[in-house]
Amino acid sequence: MKNYILLTSLLFLMLNTLNAQQRVEEIPLKIGVMQRGTLNAITDVEGVKVGHTTLVKGDSVRTGVTAILPHGGNIFQQKVPAAVFVGNGFGKLAGSTQINELGNLETPVILTNTLNVPTAMDALIKYTLNLPGNENVRSVNAVVGETNDGYLNDIRGQHVTNADVISAIQNAKIGKVTEGNVGAGTGTIAFGYKGGIGTASRKLPESLGGYTLGVLVQSNFGGVLQIAGVPVGQKLGNYSFSNNLQNNVDGSCMMVVATDAPLNNRNLERLAKRAFLGLAKTGGIASNGSGDYVIAFSTAEGVRVPYKIETKTLEQELVPNDLMSPLFMAAIEATEEAILNSLFMAETTTGFKGRTIKALPKEEVLQYLKEAGVLED
Amino acid sequence: MKNYILLTSLLFLMLNTLNAQQRVEEIPLKIGVMQRGTLNAITDVEGVKVGHTTLVKGDSVRTGVTAILPHGGNIFQQKVPAAVFVGNGFGKLAGSTQINELGNLETPVILTNTLNVPTAMDALIKYTLNLPGNENVRSVNAVVGETNDGYLNDIRGQHVTNADVISAIQNAKIGKVTEGNVGAGTGTIAFGYKGGIGTASRKLPESLGGYTLGVLVQSNFGGVLQIAGVPVGQKLGNYSFSNNLQNNVDGSCMMVVATDAPLNNRNLERLAKRAFLGLAKTGGIASNGSGDYVIAFSTAEGVRVPYKIETKTLEQELVPNDLMSPLFMAAIEATEEAILNSLFMAETTTGFKGRTIKALPKEEVLQYLKEAGVLED
Amino acid sequence: MKNYILLTSLLFLMLNTLNAQQRVEEIPLKIGVMQRGTLNAITDVEGVKVGHTTLVKGDSVRTGVTAILPHGGNIFQQKVPAAVFVGNGFGKLAGSTQINELGNLETPVILTNTLNVPTAMDALIKYTLNLPGNENVRSVNAVVGETNDGYLNDIRGQHVTNADVISAIQNAKIGKVTEGNVGAGTGTIAFGYKGGIGTASRKLPESLGGYTLGVLVQSNFGGVLQIAGVPVGQKLGNYSFSNNLQNNVDGSCMMVVATDAPLNNRNLERLAKRAFLGLAKTGGIASNGSGDYVIAFSTAEGVRVPYKIETKTLEQELVPNDLMSPLFMAAIEATEEAILNSLFMAETTTGFKGRTIKALPKEEVLQYLKEAGVLED
Amino acid sequence: MKNYILLTSLLFLMLNTLNAQQRVEEIPLKIGVMQRGTLNAITDVEGVKVGHTTLVKGDSVRTGVTAILPHGGNIFQQKVPAAVFVGNGFGKLAGSTQINELGNLETPVILTNTLNVPTAMDALIKYTLNLPGNENVRSVNAVVGETNDGYLNDIRGQHVTNADVISAIQNAKIGKVTEGNVGAGTGTIAFGYKGGIGTASRKLPESLGGYTLGVLVQSNFGGVLQIAGVPVGQKLGNYSFSNNLQNNVDGSCMMVVATDAPLNNRNLERLAKRAFLGLAKTGGIASNGSGDYVIAFSTAEGVRVPYKIETKTLEQELVPNDLMSPLFMAAIEATEEAILNSLFMAETTTGFKGRTIKALPKEEVLQYLKEAGVLED
Repeated sequence: MKNYILLTSLLFLMLNTLNAQQRVEEIPLKIGVMQRGTLNAITDVEGVKVGHTTLVKGDSVRTGVTAILPHGGNIFQQKVPAAVFVGNGFGKLAGSTQINELGNLETPVILTNTLNVPTAMDALIKYTLNLPGNENVRSVNAVVGETNDGYLNDIRGQHVTNADVISAIQNAKIGKVTEGNVGAGTGTIAFGYKGGIGTASRKLPESLGGYTLGVLVQSNFGGVLQIAGVPVGQKLGNYSFSNNLQNNVDGSCMMVVATDAPLNNRNLERLAKRAFLGLAKTGGIASNGSGDYVIAFSTAEGVRVPYKIETKTLEQELVPNDLMSPLFMAAIEATEEAILNSLFMAETTTGFKGRTIKALPKEEVLQYLKEAGVLED
Repeated sequence: MKNYILLTSLLFLMLNTLNAQQRVEEIPLKIGVMQRGTLNAITDVEGVKVGHTTLVKGDSVRTGVTAILPHGGNIFQQKVPAAVFVGNGFGKLAGSTQINELGNLETPVILTNTLNVPTAMDALIKYTLNLPGNENVRSVNAVVGETNDGYLNDIRGQHVTNADVISAIQNAKIGKVTEGNVGAGTGTIAFGYKGGIGTASRKLPESLGGYTLGVLVQSNFGGVLQIAGVPVGQKLGNYSFSNNLQNNVDGSCMMVVATDAPLNNRNLERLAKRAFLGLAKTGGIASNGSGDYVIAFSTAEGVRVPYKIETKTLEQELVPNDLMSPLFMAAIEATEEAILNSLFMAETTTGFKGRTIKALPKEEVLQYLKEAGVLED
Repeated sequence: MKNYILLTSLLFLMLNTLNAQQRVEEIPLKIGVMQRGTLNAITDVEGVKVGHTTLVKGDSVRTGVTAILPHGGNIFQQKVPAAVFVGNGFGKLAGSTQINELGNLETPVILTNTLNVPTAMDALIKYTLNLPGNENVRSVNAVVGETNDGYLNDIRGQHVTNADVISAIQNAKIGKVTEGNVGAGTGTIAFGYKGGIGTASRKLPESLGGYTLGVLVQSNFGGVLQIAGVPVGQKLGNYSFSNNLQNNVDGSCMMVVATDAPLNNRNLERLAKRAFLGLAKTGGIASNGSGDYVIAFSTAEGVRVPYKIETKTLEQELVPNDLMSPLFMAAIEATEEAILNSLFMAETTTGFKGRTIKALPKEEVLQYLKEAGVLED
Repeated sequence: MKNYILLTSLLFLMLNTLNAQQRVEEIPLKIGVMQRGTLNAITDVEGVKVGHTTLVKGDSVRTGVTAILPHGGNIFQQKVPAAVFVGNGFGKLAGSTQINELGNLETPVILTNTLNVPTAMDALIKYTLNLPGNENVRSVNAVVGETNDGYLNDIRGQHVTNADVISAIQNAKIGKVTEGNVGAGTGTIAFGYKGGIGTASRKLPESLGGYTLGVLVQSNFGGVLQIAGVPVGQKLGNYSFSNNLQNNVDGSCMMVVATDAPLNNRNLERLAKRAFLGLAKTGGIASNGSGDYVIAFSTAEGVRVPYKIETKTLEQELVPNDLMSPLFMAAIEATEEAILNSLFMAETTTGFKGRTIKALPKEEVLQYLKEAGVLED
């Protein structure tokens, strides 16, 4: 009898282990050649906070909000250098032209579903207007990204409220970031499997600058899934145009890149472009219907831009072009891993109209990865 | 006694005439060398409709909504080729990246105040979702432009509602366009005087293509006002940096260009850029804080893009590059005149916190124009 | 007899005065509201040098080279922040993508004719490779602009040589700049009259930063000429599409903007865009066939970028966005005046195939300016 | 004795087999999921011709020229729709602004070394001016790409001549394309190994449009080499920053994409962007010093743009946005494979200053690929 209980427990433990979502690093699988940050999350960049509001209601609501705060202060009063790169512009990202014109970001970055972008913008505006010190502010560049979760979520119902957005901002915290079916990733789909929120980071050695770079993604796109280079999508027989038909491969990927390297808008735009290369390494093809955008910002205190500048010039210490390449590589690797984390951490979901999207079939995937020799010991 | 009444009537008539707002063409003043369209309005482009919601409430609300509809059908189902040019991106224009990626516009264009962009987007989304035939639509690229009317309007109150936006769309009509203190121009300021909505058009001779091009602007910017080349701002002593101080010269100008010439996104973007040159000819300087955007679209039926395309290719008959220059000139002229119409048609306004912005002092201005010899006989 | 001599002398003086080319400031005519620099030339920006090689040979060669040097040192070793704005890209400007990617300029700027761009690039490369200190340089971003002088010049003959380019660089000097039919402007045409090289500058009051900004143009474009706002082209009956035919309105305008304000690439690109607005104020329409490009750079020592950077970061003191507007206005005014100077200083030229292009008919023009009341006392 | 001869023959055969360069398809290795074209080369796109001039002279000259001709006619008279995407603009690509402004290409595309771009431009101009029918042409937009072969080649010597460029154009032919150490790839380096010219193609099934797309690359860049996803660079211990030092990772990649799909400039630009994603899949990081550019053009006869258009409109049948995704995937796959072909086909080279760059160590690489299970049976 004792043995039986022991066996059952063991079995339960095993199953549990099999079912439990694991991050890429826990598999364990290494992506690229650079060192991960402590938490392997965008929050490894000092001061960055992430908050989620997850909306799972009844049969049809599978959506939410994710907020990324560049620092803990009043972002409007202490703007951060930023840039937007448009990988494929079939999307509704709000705020890009002002970011690229002025070179900075003055609100938290909000991610949500396509049809709730106005809700999130309105909430960001009200949030900013109401911050102490912003009593005279009359213009706010609300930055909101989105992907379309309309397969699993009743997106036409526009179920996100202003309060949901404010809640994501207010819940934002440093430290570990929840991934998978959470926040803006609650209802998203990637490579035919359940996608969601994922994050990862890289820490450069001192000789390459010692900077930290983190990425957070909302994955909702297609292509031919590759995991650490292994053509998993192909092995699973589940990839874009696998049937040679013009089926729906569309979707989007929002990518947010944070770094403590002191960069200006120009080099942040270049950095943002590399995140798009990271997407490619997971097998993403940036299909016609995909809204693939990257928002990159620097948290370095020395490059913040005060709302009111009293001096004739602004002094900045910036990383020169010649030292950008390690950061470029870090952005590629962290984006690739963040996307994979979003897949590995997501769980099978049933939603709108009873539709179900399965999580990545981990057992098969692990088998493929093992066969390819990419698993770490 | 009779005589007295007659005299009074005459005097009243005269005053009325003096006070009545006149369009540039009524002064009469010619802008440029090309022929005006019948109404000298964006609605000269066949099918284009314009609607306003004007919000003047109590002491503080001086704002509104202007809607421009490219055609009378379901725009989402019959998209029109379009492009956005960013003159100066200190603004919150929504929808630009998708327009430039896909090359088309799928909603009416809405203009409003800076902090009500989300309201207008949300209304446009709901409007589009609810159109017959759009029952399965899950993605809408809402296009909303804005300028900041926060001096005369309690902008932080965000007084525009969804219903106001829908109303502007539903009131939209072909024919004469109301200008000045109306719709999105209710509370705007240009060159230190009351700005607002203005429109103008040009009709090319048959030898140059015979196309019609119309422009509508929401003027809210600064610089050194020039009217038909006459440096009126300087003569009035009212222009940017006239006191050699870093005073507030900021503001914005939204410009919408419509044409029946069959153009694709690339040539529409080039056309949009020329509207920015038209702004320059009024003395605009596109100051740091200005959100100067141009949205250009073609109404030609032959270049519309159906939502669902059943064929492998789409046939289009397009104006070749070599024949674009007359359209470029028309865009410059019509933009210049539309901006001037916005000023000439606007009226002195008192609004938020009791602030007053005067209309252009027509008597003085006419005197200057007369002296410069630019008035037509 | 004495009287006769006197009369003749007087007549000669008068004719001479009438024929002598005058700058806009000598007419005297004021453009805009800001103060001119000492020389009213791009060389008012400290350190900037300009050199010309003028090629007038036999009946057919009417072309040349103009070199603009940002500073007197080794520009490759001490790069200057720079940006390129493409007004209309029907042109062969070399070097733009690297300038905008890296944010700096590493050679003098050379202007020449369309078909000799490779000659000028090759000369710039050799010049740079051979500078002391550049012995190990293996990559040079040669920046060369052009306009097409093929009406007056046997452009297919590609008459500019490497030596001509080197000569323009070596002759470059601070101080007064020769204008009109000189260097790269030898064979150009603007608004139907002889164009050429023109320059102008503005000096901001201390309260607006105290910076100097200078512009040099190679004018070779069309439209409806306006001088200080007066529609001279129309009065002369000589403007684009004046016959309602698709005649040749094409041409180009190269604009170079220099400033001692410490600006980075982003704000230089914004500044460059304003030069394009200056072009509009002269009546330019940026026709389809026009190659209208602006290259802007900052000469401020504090923002130079050394070829080899030994430190991990580069310190820069930059003008913040909020203080850019006066520089924007200066760029508009200086460009407008530089273009007008190129016209006023150019002389009637007969060239290739016996073709003649007349200089601006100054007497008539002055009469129009006088009637419009824009001449200064 | 017989046995000895047999043994020798066998040994020779083996060595030969080991030394002989093999294309990726011969290994055999499959890249991606789509079908290759007949020749698996850019010349699978009907009408496209490729020609090389290879310059290997003495100890120091290891460079050359590669010409890609969109069709066999007079390209200036029958321009092809084209676009340029700048992946990373540290490069000297000539002609990009006009291509993107006008949407077309009017010369062959020439690839060469960095310091001979002017030579190639000049040759292209002369070639175009001298073509029958071009007697009155006065403006030519010469399109020349480059990478820097200055490690193996005496690049400062600028050893490419006009005749070398003309020769590459004149030798251009349809059919099989020579790869590796040839033409513009003679002296290039990729991922620390000998790079060069590579090509590949994809043929879409009829259900996805049936179009052919081909890519040709000049590989000269770095990163962490991945072959069919296998992290070969890491296994070989030879990758960017492998020593944690800011070593030279720079270099460039020129990519040329041809397709017979009827596309306009906008969709060609989107297609070009996907080639950049293909580069990412080989492990490229687009380092700071890399000039990564993609030129894409369509050879479809129905979308050619005649130099002189006699009609008021130009009729075009174009692939709609919705059907672009399979072409996007094809561009990614073909670029990835073209880069790999450039590596597999290149041979160990000793050049300038006695420097040697080894070819990819095929035996080791094949072993890694075998272990990873990616080799085909």
